[in-house]
Amino acid sequence: MSIKSKKNIFYAQSGGVTPVINATAKGIYDEFKKNRKFFGRLLIGKNGIAGALNEEIIDIEKEKKKEIEKLIHTPGGAFGSCRIKLKDPKKDQHEFNRILEVFKKYNIGYFLYNGGGDSQDTTLKLSKFFKKNRIDIKCIGIPKTIDNDLPGTYACPGFGTVAKYIATSTLEASLDVSSMSNSSTKVFILEVMGRHAGWLAGASGVIKGINNNAPQIILFPEKIFDEKTFLKKTKKSVEDDGFCVIVVSEGIKNKKGDFISSSSSKDSFGHAHLGGVAPILANLVNNSLGYKVHWAVADYLQRAARHIGAEADVQQAYDVGRQSVQFLTKGISDVMVTVLKRKRDGAWMTGKIPLGKVANKEKKLPSNFISKDGFSITTICRKYILSLIDGESIPPFVNGIPNYSKLELREIKKLK
Amino acid sequence: MSIKSKKNIFYAQSGGVTPVINATAKGIYDEFKKNRKFFGRLLIGKNGIAGALNEEIIDIEKEKKKEIEKLIHTPGGAFGSCRIKLKDPKKDQHEFNRILEVFKKYNIGYFLYNGGGDSQDTTLKLSKFFKKNRIDIKCIGIPKTIDNDLPGTYACPGFGTVAKYIATSTLEASLDVSSMSNSSTKVFILEVMGRHAGWLAGASGVIKGINNNAPQIILFPEKIFDEKTFLKKTKKSVEDDGFCVIVVSEGIKNKKGDFISSSSSKDSFGHAHLGGVAPILANLVNNSLGYKVHWAVADYLQRAARHIGAEADVQQAYDVGRQSVQFLTKGISDVMVTVLKRKRDGAWMTGKIPLGKVANKEKKLPSNFISKDGFSITTICRKYILSLIDGESIPPFVNGIPNYSKLELREIKKLK
Repeated sequence: MSIKSKKNIFYAQSGGVTPVINATAKGIYDEFKKNRKFFGRLLIGKNGIAGALNEEIIDIEKEKKKEIEKLIHTPGGAFGSCRIKLKDPKKDQHEFNRILEVFKKYNIGYFLYNGGGDSQDTTLKLSKFFKKNRIDIKCIGIPKTIDNDLPGTYACPGFGTVAKYIATSTLEASLDVSSMSNSSTKVFILEVMGRHAGWLAGASGVIKGINNNAPQIILFPEKIFDEKTFLKKTKKSVEDDGFCVIVVSEGIKNKKGDFISSSSSKDSFGHAHLGGVAPILANLVNNSLGYKVHWAVADYLQRAARHIGAEADVQQAYDVGRQSVQFLTKGISDVMVTVLKRKRDGAWMTGKIPLGKVANKEKKLPSNFISKDGFSITTICRKYILSLIDGESIPPFVNGIPNYSKLELREIKKLK
Repeated sequence: MSIKSKKNIFYAQSGGVTPVINATAKGIYDEFKKNRKFFGRLLIGKNGIAGALNEEIIDIEKEKKKEIEKLIHTPGGAFGSCRIKLKDPKKDQHEFNRILEVFKKYNIGYFLYNGGGDSQDTTLKLSKFFKKNRIDIKCIGIPKTIDNDLPGTYACPGFGTVAKYIATSTLEASLDVSSMSNSSTKVFILEVMGRHAGWLAGASGVIKGINNNAPQIILFPEKIFDEKTFLKKTKKSVEDDGFCVIVVSEGIKNKKGDFISSSSSKDSFGHAHLGGVAPILANLVNNSLGYKVHWAVADYLQRAARHIGAEADVQQAYDVGRQSVQFLTKGISDVMVTVLKRKRDGAWMTGKIPLGKVANKEKKLPSNFISKDGFSITTICRKYILSLIDGESIPPFVNGIPNYSKLELREIKKLK
């Protein structure tokens, strides 16, 4: 079938990847196959929107079926992602014209962009640009972010698995430090991701009371970090429980509004590139209270931790992918797929929200999700997080190592 | 049955804990139950040898059966561990006399100490002291260390599970960074444990070639860190593969013999307490080569990662526990249980080595396990590590969270 016979879909992955973004790709693929008569090809941009800008395009049906099947349990962005913020089209239309040119050339009638708040902004801008140029390309945003900070959706695919990893790791580390605390390490600090929203730090709170009192302290970016209160609580926890587990969001700030972490380089979206608040707190605790401290920075280990996938999350990622293609078959455009609630059979009910209502917006932890003292989560928050970390989706292993998808990613021949 | 009727066993956990040390405790318990007529009680020291010094002793049969069963899949030291180095008995016999006094009081005829090189030294010293005082207390050391650095044994229980976690996490993070590398992060650095021996760093090498070329660089403590060669290799890797994954052992040193890591506090054994070489390398790479770098420090996350247990390792931990009790029934003393090789049914053949040959000794990576350029492992090393990370032992989950053992740890009434 010629690439020109029916309108093709262009799908791409954008922003920081997640352990389940490829499950979304699998959902798109499966629904595309179901609606084979409706569409031309399912083309995928290599490295996000860069695939359009550079005309580096993959035809998923050229990949091995076996490897496509594995996408459901493979972390990272199998097609490559990007951190590219398109220039303001009012000031510079070069990139927009280029994308339009490529989309026209490859007969693209449908644009599916899979990302967080910044990526939804890209989708919105492109949608407006296509409209202005009277080109009929349907644009659908698909949510994805471990930060869980997109508005208008019950949750964001990617969060549940990382939340499960953080809850599990915090529980495990608490058992370690509590066994060492009598004559050695008394404090363990775990730094997790979450630039402005404390969802991931909060996820650690679900373990409280199960085996022990950890985490005794959660530091949310929604709360101003106060050294004195923090040290007092740490000391009290060690005195009461024998040890103290602290889970800290990378993005905590002091009352002046400065990040506590040391690094302050910025990514291409202009966000500070953080990391390294754990060692700073470790030194603070050690110097002020004299306790031996261990600390960990989870970084990509959390973001890629597909080996302990949450079934609820994998299902969610898959379902938003399928829904995006269903929307296309109905002629729907300019919306982001949203997650509504889980059905009895385990699948998620999905909905939609106008792109303008999600682009560049961040949903922080509601105040009734954080305890009064600011160091724990509330019952309502715990219930919410438990709904997202439910079930275990363990990937298959070969020779003791997870058997993840390995795509060829051979680009289709450039059209003239 | 009176505590005095038959000789009792005193078991304790010592040193840094592992994800499977409790599987050893379960092996001891099961074998003790099988040989019920031979022994009095199975008493366990709270917090290692401190349990003897402080007369804080647990009778395992007072714990709930259900929770004892869970020990097979519970990380950390369920009975508490310690970092206590007994004073040289030639200079100060106070601690030795105290332990002897308590052991006599509680009718201890058997001492099982579960730990690494330092703990084997404790067992050896106690054994000598008991002999000198003509007290018949059989002493058996049981290996345990994620560092895998005990001599005279094929491997150390604890290593396989942490190796599996590191291999899996490195693979997952490599999929993450490779998807980001086109327009963002190009280098990912993972810091793992291993003070003097590079077994854990080396474990990451088993994934090379499976999905991609990661880890392109492993930094072993057995090799002197050379900044120039390191940066050259990093640059070459990014140029060839688009990204570079670096796994670094916490204990790497420069040619002057100084640790690259920043922290230099010491633990009670006089070992430097390390951690924090990853951020130093991250800054070095960023400043010298300009690449965006992400870094993680696994710390306790690796040491407690029971959620991804290696079946081969769990079995090993269980088997050395059982063997230690079998040795007691045969009147064997003053040895450490060793691991020989795995049988077809999955169980491990075990053996023994005199305590004097393992105490305070460290087995480093043999030179034929490290590649010529010093940045990878060899085929023989890969085969060895694969034999230890084999199989998946996933704990049961409840509400999305691992269901780990929770013991009461109620001490028995102090005898007069």
